[in-house]
Amino acid sequence: MTIIALSRSVVCGAAMSKTADCCKRVLHYVFDYETTKTLVIPSLEVGCVFRFIQILVLLYALGYVLIVQKAYQQTDNVMSSVTTKVKGFAFTNTSDMDPRFWDMADYVIPSQGGNSFFVLTNMVITPHQTQSRCPELPSPSTTCVDDCDCTEGLNDPRGSGIQTGLCENYSTTARTCEVISWCPLEIDSTLPKRPVLAAAENFTVLIKNSITYPKFNFNMRNILPHINSSYLKRCEFNRATDPHCPIFRLKHMVAEAGEEFQDMAVKGGILGIIIDWSCDLDWWAGKCYPKYSFRRLDNKNPTNNVAPGYNFRFAKYFQTTDGEETRTLIKAYGIRFDVLVFGTAGKFGIVPTLVSLGAGLSFLSLVPAIADAYLMMCARKRRLYEKHKVTYLNEDEDSEPVSMGTTYGTQ
Amino acid sequence: MTIIALSRSVVCGAAMSKTADCCKRVLHYVFDYETTKTLVIPSLEVGCVFRFIQILVLLYALGYVLIVQKAYQQTDNVMSSVTTKVKGFAFTNTSDMDPRFWDMADYVIPSQGGNSFFVLTNMVITPHQTQSRCPELPSPSTTCVDDCDCTEGLNDPRGSGIQTGLCENYSTTARTCEVISWCPLEIDSTLPKRPVLAAAENFTVLIKNSITYPKFNFNMRNILPHINSSYLKRCEFNRATDPHCPIFRLKHMVAEAGEEFQDMAVKGGILGIIIDWSCDLDWWAGKCYPKYSFRRLDNKNPTNNVAPGYNFRFAKYFQTTDGEETRTLIKAYGIRFDVLVFGTAGKFGIVPTLVSLGAGLSFLSLVPAIADAYLMMCARKRRLYEKHKVTYLNEDEDSEPVSMGTTYGTQ
Amino acid sequence: MTIIALSRSVVCGAAMSKTADCCKRVLHYVFDYETTKTLVIPSLEVGCVFRFIQILVLLYALGYVLIVQKAYQQTDNVMSSVTTKVKGFAFTNTSDMDPRFWDMADYVIPSQGGNSFFVLTNMVITPHQTQSRCPELPSPSTTCVDDCDCTEGLNDPRGSGIQTGLCENYSTTARTCEVISWCPLEIDSTLPKRPVLAAAENFTVLIKNSITYPKFNFNMRNILPHINSSYLKRCEFNRATDPHCPIFRLKHMVAEAGEEFQDMAVKGGILGIIIDWSCDLDWWAGKCYPKYSFRRLDNKNPTNNVAPGYNFRFAKYFQTTDGEETRTLIKAYGIRFDVLVFGTAGKFGIVPTLVSLGAGLSFLSLVPAIADAYLMMCARKRRLYEKHKVTYLNEDEDSEPVSMGTTYGTQ
Repeated sequence: MTIIALSRSVVCGAAMSKTADCCKRVLHYVFDYETTKTLVIPSLEVGCVFRFIQILVLLYALGYVLIVQKAYQQTDNVMSSVTTKVKGFAFTNTSDMDPRFWDMADYVIPSQGGNSFFVLTNMVITPHQTQSRCPELPSPSTTCVDDCDCTEGLNDPRGSGIQTGLCENYSTTARTCEVISWCPLEIDSTLPKRPVLAAAENFTVLIKNSITYPKFNFNMRNILPHINSSYLKRCEFNRATDPHCPIFRLKHMVAEAGEEFQDMAVKGGILGIIIDWSCDLDWWAGKCYPKYSFRRLDNKNPTNNVAPGYNFRFAKYFQTTDGEETRTLIKAYGIRFDVLVFGTAGKFGIVPTLVSLGAGLSFLSLVPAIADAYLMMCARKRRLYEKHKVTYLNEDEDSEPVSMGTTYGTQ
Repeated sequence: MTIIALSRSVVCGAAMSKTADCCKRVLHYVFDYETTKTLVIPSLEVGCVFRFIQILVLLYALGYVLIVQKAYQQTDNVMSSVTTKVKGFAFTNTSDMDPRFWDMADYVIPSQGGNSFFVLTNMVITPHQTQSRCPELPSPSTTCVDDCDCTEGLNDPRGSGIQTGLCENYSTTARTCEVISWCPLEIDSTLPKRPVLAAAENFTVLIKNSITYPKFNFNMRNILPHINSSYLKRCEFNRATDPHCPIFRLKHMVAEAGEEFQDMAVKGGILGIIIDWSCDLDWWAGKCYPKYSFRRLDNKNPTNNVAPGYNFRFAKYFQTTDGEETRTLIKAYGIRFDVLVFGTAGKFGIVPTLVSLGAGLSFLSLVPAIADAYLMMCARKRRLYEKHKVTYLNEDEDSEPVSMGTTYGTQ
Repeated sequence: MTIIALSRSVVCGAAMSKTADCCKRVLHYVFDYETTKTLVIPSLEVGCVFRFIQILVLLYALGYVLIVQKAYQQTDNVMSSVTTKVKGFAFTNTSDMDPRFWDMADYVIPSQGGNSFFVLTNMVITPHQTQSRCPELPSPSTTCVDDCDCTEGLNDPRGSGIQTGLCENYSTTARTCEVISWCPLEIDSTLPKRPVLAAAENFTVLIKNSITYPKFNFNMRNILPHINSSYLKRCEFNRATDPHCPIFRLKHMVAEAGEEFQDMAVKGGILGIIIDWSCDLDWWAGKCYPKYSFRRLDNKNPTNNVAPGYNFRFAKYFQTTDGEETRTLIKAYGIRFDVLVFGTAGKFGIVPTLVSLGAGLSFLSLVPAIADAYLMMCARKRRLYEKHKVTYLNEDEDSEPVSMGTTYGTQ
């Protein structure tokens, strides 16, 4: 266009002032509207094909992507704070231990309920340990005949302490290397086959979960606004009847994860309490409620596993009257409950809407190309349509373009 | 086009070799350039409409989406590590307890400062508990007249232990069922109305937060590079004067959340310390600084609440000289501070830029369609424009297309 | 188009019924196919330019964005659960302390291995503290000459307790203000220069990590399915030889982070164990494996730091035979290991594919515009092409449009 304006300015010559001429050229360049020449084909056949493809694209790219898949929403990830409180008592009276009463301060470790809490179900207790020397537990690597079999200072992580280099009588039949350690040593093969705190299955836990979607300034709690205190005091979670009650029976949670509480309690395990806060925060969408699910997180499969179940050792330290430190070592087996909160909230956002809409529109701009291809290749009167639609430029004959035949062909 | 090339090859016939002919057809197919025929309309009216819509679309889809909303950025979520250290002393001298001095090892639980720490503010202490039997606390369900009112082995979670089946004198006026439990029982109705550690409001906490945006390999700490050690030793967070000091007075944080420390300290609660690391990591953007805010996370509302405030029970275990285990049970009320770190960093990314740009461009391709609609419907000389722009094909008369009238009308 | 149909209906007049006429107009409006008139230019020059730009855009917008950058994937963030178990023994025999044997129950705090565990490496132990009064540690602010220099009730957070207002002999040479506190006071300047538990560098930790991508319902553990138990019992992580072994030697991890264990152990620190689960979950992609990396998270830089290293105080409480409470205060220095799990999984999704494809297509629709610009400005025969492609409407002469010259020029 600039070229045309230029050539014209040469023709007009000096008759007009340079400034006015320049203005005109800019005017032409900016405000001349260049539109395509079109041919209207009154063919029901082609029209139908065109409209059909157009409707398909609209349904798919706009209807499906924008409406069904909610591509008009921007998203945010949940930020969460959890408190948990376990309730229940147990009384144990097994042959291994003195009769004992257990409350939450005894079996919940740590006592402070955060988003991960542990309920003790089984244990090996080794009381009255002191810093001293004692013969190792018998094993192929610790049995000895005399002191030569033991190495002073040997620190074997699979053993129980640091060898002194002496060989001592472990029992009347076995001699093992002596170690410096907390003695007497823990014998964890005495783990009860039936969990000590089998009664833990009836304990309940209250889970309070407060979430925030910071981008949308949206706060919510799992104790829903429409629930009253008296209901909360007596309810218990049940997927069918009480899906919004924040009090869960341990046995019920383990069962929902497809496990048997008494089996899991023997060697321990990890149970995920998964709270899904995925929400549509647009005002026309419904309320935003948490959805609970439960899944065992540790590996039961014995073939590719190490240290199966879940256990840890902790000690209670005491001081005897003569100032000596003693401890009670507890190898605690139990179920660790991990409250995993996740969720993505979506809300109408101008950016994702425009991007999705724009991407959808560009599919629409493909439709005429497809319809043209049909017109030129498949339509019944394609020769007629082509004659009127397409002009083949003959570069050699500048005079009149011919409708058929191009320069390649006649060279 | 293939069809045309095909028909032409039939006409040319055997005069040319097949191979050369085939080559030519492919050449035509690939390298003939098909362009639209256009009509330039020198109308200021239509030109203005066209340019105006074009500018609108450019401003909106590109300027707003790409520049203002930063749609050219890819994003990453923050990964964070927090350490906290509380400082301060308190001396309590109330009628309920012996005079006592408190330091951090006493009132911070757990002592190890992670991203959630608890400051003890109020408590019910039950010392010298042993495994034994004692009458229940009086309540409608535990008062009894004789042993028949009590069930041996009954384990009521709302009670304090497991019933023995006996009815004993609780006081001179009340008889209650005896339970196996840690005795004496905790009487938590004796919770002080004024928090024991009211002085906790003046404790300070140092929060160290180290973050990473793994996708951008960007690391940062909340102790900013330009801050020196001497400032850090004496500063205290204040939104106006010291917004980057990582030392916070507990009272100040609670006040920023719109709460009264002394009120909250009685029954406890949860306070969120929210650190926002939302950053623009492009080099032309400013520095990346953390923004602190504070919000109460637990529910104060008494109508839909259960176990309001925040408390938990823990025990210190002792051994008497004759080897019996005793414990001091502490029902600890206090404020749990949850450090919640969130943030999304954005940085120029080629994929989001191209996608946003592409989506914006497809809006631009709509503009001629709108301008054409104006041209044909609203422009003053629309009849003239239509005559030159649109050709109506008359399918019956193959000879010459007429500019007006289509086959539908004359059938 | 509606306007044309309207004018035609007037001409036809009353000859036809209104209903049939209306139907015809709607039919025309919906099913007439309007296509652009095109000009085929058999120029190799222009054709090559067009095809070249087209291929460039295809390669870039589709090949690069869609295939290389995987813009066809929707993403999800990882949800993770971690358990850790430290193993190893140490025997310490320094001048400061009695000889002592250490196992995991002694040096891992808290004992329960979650996603953050602390290994004690150095400490200041203050045994036999009782609630009493003692003179402050000497410092400029605590030394005094007589009682007038001390303020009763002064609670200085940099001190050790609450002043009683008396001035007492701290040593034969120094007099300091007396404080109510846990006495004797901790003297933390006695921190050993060589870490007490230097042997901790050879401890190992087993990290079990179970992850979920909830959106894709994909679960995985860091103990990979193809690894067997016997390998797990003897392996140790090594980036080159055992990259999938979940057992890590503490010294090795610290070395991978570019630090020296013995240096870090003196004053403590925080080490991030970063597990990257970024995965491509499409079936044609490879397996999804965790990648481990290690990074020191605390600030070593002394210039802008406060409380360098990592330490915290905790106490073990004892009861003397006469019922008095005593405690052993431990200022624990050590390395906190934070297991930071991150990752984004991508999987083919119809929405991101369509959006990326749409955005790419809109770049393709730019190509004819660029080729046209070349045609009209740079092509050799541009005057010929222009003559056939562009028609300049002359608004004054309604009869025949001229190919050159517009209304502006002749006004």
